[in-house]
Amino acid sequence: MTNLFFSPNSIAIIGATEDPKKFGNAVTSNIVKNPKLTAKIFPISRSSSTILGLTAYRSILDVPESVDLAIILVPAKFVPSVVDDCIEKKVKRIIIVTAGFGEISPEGKEIEQKMAEKCRNAGIRVIGPNCVGIQNVDIGMNASFIQDPLPGKISMVSQSGSFGCAIMDGLKWNDMGMSKFANIGNAMDVSFDEILEFFNTDPNTHVIAIYLEAVKDGAAFYQVLKKIAPNKPAVVLKGGRTQAGMAAAGSHTGSLASNYTVLKAAVDQAGGIMCENIEDYITTLKTFSLLPIPKGVNIGVLTNSGGAGVLYSDSAEELGLKLSPFSEHLKEKLKPLVIDLVQMVNPLDMIAGANEENYYRVTKAMLEEDSGIDIVVPCGVYPPFLGMKFEKNLEGMIRAWNETGRKKPLIPLLVFGSGYEKVKEVATRECVPIFSTPHEAAYATKVLIQRMKVLDRDR
Amino acid sequence: MTNLFFSPNSIAIIGATEDPKKFGNAVTSNIVKNPKLTAKIFPISRSSSTILGLTAYRSILDVPESVDLAIILVPAKFVPSVVDDCIEKKVKRIIIVTAGFGEISPEGKEIEQKMAEKCRNAGIRVIGPNCVGIQNVDIGMNASFIQDPLPGKISMVSQSGSFGCAIMDGLKWNDMGMSKFANIGNAMDVSFDEILEFFNTDPNTHVIAIYLEAVKDGAAFYQVLKKIAPNKPAVVLKGGRTQAGMAAAGSHTGSLASNYTVLKAAVDQAGGIMCENIEDYITTLKTFSLLPIPKGVNIGVLTNSGGAGVLYSDSAEELGLKLSPFSEHLKEKLKPLVIDLVQMVNPLDMIAGANEENYYRVTKAMLEEDSGIDIVVPCGVYPPFLGMKFEKNLEGMIRAWNETGRKKPLIPLLVFGSGYEKVKEVATRECVPIFSTPHEAAYATKVLIQRMKVLDRDR
Repeated sequence: MTNLFFSPNSIAIIGATEDPKKFGNAVTSNIVKNPKLTAKIFPISRSSSTILGLTAYRSILDVPESVDLAIILVPAKFVPSVVDDCIEKKVKRIIIVTAGFGEISPEGKEIEQKMAEKCRNAGIRVIGPNCVGIQNVDIGMNASFIQDPLPGKISMVSQSGSFGCAIMDGLKWNDMGMSKFANIGNAMDVSFDEILEFFNTDPNTHVIAIYLEAVKDGAAFYQVLKKIAPNKPAVVLKGGRTQAGMAAAGSHTGSLASNYTVLKAAVDQAGGIMCENIEDYITTLKTFSLLPIPKGVNIGVLTNSGGAGVLYSDSAEELGLKLSPFSEHLKEKLKPLVIDLVQMVNPLDMIAGANEENYYRVTKAMLEEDSGIDIVVPCGVYPPFLGMKFEKNLEGMIRAWNETGRKKPLIPLLVFGSGYEKVKEVATRECVPIFSTPHEAAYATKVLIQRMKVLDRDR
Repeated sequence: MTNLFFSPNSIAIIGATEDPKKFGNAVTSNIVKNPKLTAKIFPISRSSSTILGLTAYRSILDVPESVDLAIILVPAKFVPSVVDDCIEKKVKRIIIVTAGFGEISPEGKEIEQKMAEKCRNAGIRVIGPNCVGIQNVDIGMNASFIQDPLPGKISMVSQSGSFGCAIMDGLKWNDMGMSKFANIGNAMDVSFDEILEFFNTDPNTHVIAIYLEAVKDGAAFYQVLKKIAPNKPAVVLKGGRTQAGMAAAGSHTGSLASNYTVLKAAVDQAGGIMCENIEDYITTLKTFSLLPIPKGVNIGVLTNSGGAGVLYSDSAEELGLKLSPFSEHLKEKLKPLVIDLVQMVNPLDMIAGANEENYYRVTKAMLEEDSGIDIVVPCGVYPPFLGMKFEKNLEGMIRAWNETGRKKPLIPLLVFGSGYEKVKEVATRECVPIFSTPHEAAYATKVLIQRMKVLDRDR
């Protein structure tokens, strides 16, 4: 069970230190600082009798209680004997953060394998070595040396620790957070796929984010993704899509470019969502975090800016989507809601004077059951006249969405709107995503339809 | 001369109003509010004797002095007689903001043509009708109903007024501004190409931004771009790249998709830069605003995050760029500047512990004349340990750039770094661009090389 890694009742930090110049200090203080974490914490230190206000022990063997999880931060040469101590102490789980094993030499690999065998025989599961660690934001456990994300419903497993940092920032600027995070380094025991299996069964994980640079066992990865598909969206980004990227990732497989093509096809086939860059990756995570899956492919667009409607249409078609004409029924419903000049075509250009009331009524007409529309995309730019406020139009859209039970996905395209603090405030308060560019909004539309098709297929 | 539109000594605002519910009020207050504008302002109003503290006149014929520029805001049915008054008054330039002419009916088109003929005979040039207006930020003149951008060196002509608003926001969030802006609506007299010709000769315009939805005369547009190419980068975005986009733009040409392919080839051939979406458009404007053109195609990458280097390499290759190996000479220079573990390959992964000093020294080594590197891309993610600060690494890069005279382009890729206020502060203060994603940084690299090739060709 991977579960106990993420919800231990007691944690020993071996190599705990107050020295801010050491990596181990980041892990120690990340664990100790969070008052939400109820697990018992036992710092282990050769040199200090207290660490950050807690009693420290010279060895894990000196800890007077049982230990669920031991986190090892000591230099590589001391790790094997510390692991022996952990076995003797009968800890249940170990995370080895320390680097300098299989990733640097064949000898390191051998040491790794020996430790793995001993732990397997003792029934202890191990994450690492050479990893950033793991986090369970739900219980306030940051067992890693990187920052805390906001709390949320996304769980991420990343083959790059530093990329995990970057994604945490990217999510934070978009007001999104994480439930769980894992970077497992050399994976001498617990595998990438096992983490995914755990996220699949974890009730607090609604969306799974994956960053990988190499796939060891393609068939197994495919099977895990296929198992996840009916339950949760699994969003994948791969570093090393090209020859240059693979070279930078230090990988030396034969046919590199084709590898990515094959992997991409496999992820699609398994029902995952493969993104091509971090912009689309963040957009996709945001989309699945906040929007329901549509019941069909019909997209309805309304706008106060012809240009925004045009550019959304371009991006949509470039992503393989199609805007259908409005039904006669919908046209009749829309006509009285806008000024006479407005032509009853999709996108519906309500012209620059459109106000909150127009946005509310037209969005609602499209969200209603009988509209023939499955996905509503209200677009807007900031027209700074007639006393208009950007956030007001957003509030109109949200009112319509709330009154129709948030059943259909609402994709507000507010061009560069995320730069307006008040707009961000409304979006955060109301748990509504905003998309800042036509491409982002079209990409959100695309992945929602893709997910709908996966669910239809698996039904 | 288009110049006088942008630098009038006296302006009459015909249809000036204090009523905030009217479009005309936005134009009036935009002109009156800016203390920087030294031109004399004459509001013309049928109903008020003063407007926003200025003496108002019932007719332009009552203005006691000569008028360089008349801006017409009155309802469409009054416009022809107001134009007659302007001719009698011998104004030099007219902007007709009012809509409701050629864009709505053949009759409107006829009225437009008659007005155009009269003005031509009187030697008066006209912008509009059905337009947002123009701006000259350098002299504090906002003769439009949209917002003020920040001051800057980019001049934009846009076939969509609302898209102009959106781009002003997009530039503002990136700490960039404009010199001049024009939206010319139905273009009954002054053409899109004439505005471009003016921007080409305007000394305050360093970068030209173009948004268009339809090209009336492809050959003429090609010739203007070709004329601009040796002097300034002309950055183009087209709305209506696809069937869906063209339909939304209300255009009904025969072979739509192929049109864009042809236009794109023509822009490339003429030496302009065609972007495919607003993200790339903003990135390109930022790049040309702040970075010098490289002398060659060799890219040098350094990073504290393997993942960032990998993803930059992927994006670079996807955009047709190539990372070459470092020369032996450069490897020798770099070796003592980083820890032993670092491998002398491009991208140079300095590992998470890299600090300001590492960034400074390695960036400088690559920027120096003898490095064999033409474009330097320092990448970073925020590693929140060992007391590191994100902005410090940026300061290290900038120090190196300053000490080498800012001769080679520096492309700082700080993954999602623009979310950090302190990072933005440093970038703004030091006039350095920051790029938040691997794609953005790679796109910046691509357009710099593209521009170098245009200049080499024209030399």
